[in-house]
Amino acid sequence: MKYTIFSEKAKAHKKPLHHKTVVPVSYVHFEEDKLAFQKVRAVKDAKCNLPILLNAGDSVTLDFGEHCVGYLHYTVNHTYTITDSPPRLKFTFGEMPLELTVPSDEYHGTLGDGWLQNEVKTSVFLPCAVQLERRYAFRYVRIERIDNATKFPVEIQQLYCDCVSSVSRESAAEFAISDPFLKRIYDISLDTLCSCEQDVFEDGPKRDRRLWIGDLRLQALTDYVSFKNIDLIKRCIYLFAGYRIDGAVAPYVFPDSPPYVDGWVFDDYSLFFISCIYDYMENCGDLELPVELYDIALQQAQIVGAKIETMKVTPFIDWCDGLDKSVAIIGVYIYTLRQLYAIAKKLQKDATWIKAEIDKAEMALRGFYSEKEGLFVTESNQISWHSQVWAVLSGVLTKDENVKVLKNIETSKTAFTMRTPYMMHYYLEALYSCNLKKKALDFLKGYWGKIVACGFDRCPEIFNPDNQFESPYNAPEINSACHAWSCTPVYWLHMLDAENTDKE
Amino acid sequence: MKYTIFSEKAKAHKKPLHHKTVVPVSYVHFEEDKLAFQKVRAVKDAKCNLPILLNAGDSVTLDFGEHCVGYLHYTVNHTYTITDSPPRLKFTFGEMPLELTVPSDEYHGTLGDGWLQNEVKTSVFLPCAVQLERRYAFRYVRIERIDNATKFPVEIQQLYCDCVSSVSRESAAEFAISDPFLKRIYDISLDTLCSCEQDVFEDGPKRDRRLWIGDLRLQALTDYVSFKNIDLIKRCIYLFAGYRIDGAVAPYVFPDSPPYVDGWVFDDYSLFFISCIYDYMENCGDLELPVELYDIALQQAQIVGAKIETMKVTPFIDWCDGLDKSVAIIGVYIYTLRQLYAIAKKLQKDATWIKAEIDKAEMALRGFYSEKEGLFVTESNQISWHSQVWAVLSGVLTKDENVKVLKNIETSKTAFTMRTPYMMHYYLEALYSCNLKKKALDFLKGYWGKIVACGFDRCPEIFNPDNQFESPYNAPEINSACHAWSCTPVYWLHMLDAENTDKE
Repeated sequence: MKYTIFSEKAKAHKKPLHHKTVVPVSYVHFEEDKLAFQKVRAVKDAKCNLPILLNAGDSVTLDFGEHCVGYLHYTVNHTYTITDSPPRLKFTFGEMPLELTVPSDEYHGTLGDGWLQNEVKTSVFLPCAVQLERRYAFRYVRIERIDNATKFPVEIQQLYCDCVSSVSRESAAEFAISDPFLKRIYDISLDTLCSCEQDVFEDGPKRDRRLWIGDLRLQALTDYVSFKNIDLIKRCIYLFAGYRIDGAVAPYVFPDSPPYVDGWVFDDYSLFFISCIYDYMENCGDLELPVELYDIALQQAQIVGAKIETMKVTPFIDWCDGLDKSVAIIGVYIYTLRQLYAIAKKLQKDATWIKAEIDKAEMALRGFYSEKEGLFVTESNQISWHSQVWAVLSGVLTKDENVKVLKNIETSKTAFTMRTPYMMHYYLEALYSCNLKKKALDFLKGYWGKIVACGFDRCPEIFNPDNQFESPYNAPEINSACHAWSCTPVYWLHMLDAENTDKE
Repeated sequence: MKYTIFSEKAKAHKKPLHHKTVVPVSYVHFEEDKLAFQKVRAVKDAKCNLPILLNAGDSVTLDFGEHCVGYLHYTVNHTYTITDSPPRLKFTFGEMPLELTVPSDEYHGTLGDGWLQNEVKTSVFLPCAVQLERRYAFRYVRIERIDNATKFPVEIQQLYCDCVSSVSRESAAEFAISDPFLKRIYDISLDTLCSCEQDVFEDGPKRDRRLWIGDLRLQALTDYVSFKNIDLIKRCIYLFAGYRIDGAVAPYVFPDSPPYVDGWVFDDYSLFFISCIYDYMENCGDLELPVELYDIALQQAQIVGAKIETMKVTPFIDWCDGLDKSVAIIGVYIYTLRQLYAIAKKLQKDATWIKAEIDKAEMALRGFYSEKEGLFVTESNQISWHSQVWAVLSGVLTKDENVKVLKNIETSKTAFTMRTPYMMHYYLEALYSCNLKKKALDFLKGYWGKIVACGFDRCPEIFNPDNQFESPYNAPEINSACHAWSCTPVYWLHMLDAENTDKE
């Protein structure tokens, strides 16, 4: 359902994008390499100088030197003889080498193969200047001349990506980190955020390209300490307010014009609407937007609260097959109720219902706490990292108990571990809430450090150091290698006071 | 080489195109049918009502009811569920069924396969409105959904061709023909001309899409009695004047912006520049353009004259393997010299050289005339229709001799017969010049009548009633089914006074 007053405000906050031209740096080829990430390595062949000569059947692979999000532009012309028929060029784009080495007809993922980044363009007359209409996210591009007119070589005379973002990379607030390793983590996280800031905060510029509220919340947190693109944050909050499902905030909005939402919800994601308002209030000091949207925030708590009562919840929490989410969702509920309470207090609203809900939910959550194990255990007798993290974040236990919970889960043998950088953000927050800053920083360095070591120049959607081919879609080549929900090291390096924490 | 004064004039005569919206009429499928043209028949399945539901793997073939030249527009939307990944649609266009029944990977023609009319379009977000950038010439289009997201059916809600032409079909001068059979020939010829009138007089809107002077001359002749699109005729004449090769008029100009020519010539085609000026003068009465371009016209005669002297000519004449063109080119030379002479006289230029060239060339041509056979025979002892037609048109013999030549060639057993509707135009002119109007009309009815009977709704590039799969490119599916040089029945039905001639 569309709530016009908010959808109009979302539209009013839309601004022109920044543009940056990036040209290919070198020719590369890919080699099998057991030591390389996903067993494939890009090998530099030569500097890429234009023009690029292409006869029928020719193929070149180019490295743009950095991750690009934008529109490929090129010009094609005749060489020594006028081309008698239209040359056909096939472009295949990849953020990572695997996207170029797995043939598209061998794709067997659970997501539609329309997300595979390739396109064929036929140019009837030369010379011609072409802009591919679809926006791609890539570092590598393979160009194949797939027509058969071998008598007529053509050349690509210009070739560049018109990269777009809602922010200029250079506009980020300065932040000094002397440790080059941490600096690299910081940089790829900030680059990730920059690449995902488009007409909305996209989850990933390669795939989905939607405004997910789980991602938005983390992007906004990170943006407040870096680009401070407050207009875009407001635009996205208004989009969620403007398109809801029976009042419930949707997990995502398709940013297209006109925007729209799907018909289902994630209960934790609906609740994060409260977090978005709370973070906005805390970071901007402005009360106008919280006043305006308070009722919707409250409504999310009411909707999800009623569902928790009957345990008819469908939260996201994390990608983890078989995960019993019943404890974690109560943790999320209390976590966001506390934020809602803070908003209500600031806005001088009656917070009686909220207080009562917190008490009720705390009692319910405490019922899952096993004193013996020092861990939260679900009714199905499942112990998961997710239950512990969200229980800690709910603040239902004392600080000491929380520290023990986080310690105990480390030594448990549970198979229900955190799978996404998104979930790891909340683990970091749990550590931070227990003042375990050094532990948090070490975890961050360990996990994101491995991402850097694997050659990523943006932070990926999914990363399992023990299984480089892990994919929630059963096809690692469709994974997004630049995904917003993994960009929070920028936020954490600010919060953790990295330089000093490291010396603790 | 570019001659700016003329290329600028060509540009100044460029005008906006007319637009007409054509929607698909019915769903069809193709059936093998020994009696159908090229053994394949389009069978109507149902009326085409929008929307068209397309699930992954689905394919529909649509008949637009008439030949279209233009840009396909469509909108795609979700159905009952929001599509999770981009649908990919493959479009395959065909003027004739064969283009849709021969798989593109089985193409083995001598022209580049970039001319095959197909394209894949991926739509990242729905709903979306798409215009295919490439202009297509087609009556049938197959739409296949080639992505694999079977859970998400989509529908095409709008679909139409924005047809373009430099003229509105309705603007043609009225011409009454009571015989429905002749009327059909007249109509498809006029439609052909209309489809080929674009930013220039194109040879064919499906393929090549160039301004060929051999075609232009016939198109202009036809246009003078129908659309009277004099601006476009002037534009095209100026283009040939504006882009020449060491002074010689090129066989074709690429109409793209900026226009350009290839580096080789057809001598007969260079000479037809004279015919274009002559026809213009005769039809428009205007002398300004002939005055302006007289020197270039004269130059063509001088260039080709010098080459004939040394027999280093490379004319087109017709597609006919092994054809000895030495006699025909002298015929063309004299034919155009006479036109040049008429222009010179009208412009009060010194025509001494022209007169002397005519005499010299006539003597040379007469040398090939065999009194015994009543036919022209080349030095290589070859008798061809082409030699006779052009010798007749040169006017080197008496009218009675010409009549005999045209009669004798009919009974000769030569394999060197006319292959293209283009060449047949000159045969009709030869008959007409001998006042054999009834014979001309019968020939026209016979040949173009068979084109009609085979189901063409435009006049094709090549048509051999005895070999429906004949192709100058070794692949009949790449033949153009709408080709300018076969549109002259409109001209001839005016010239031949069809209604009365038929009763002779």
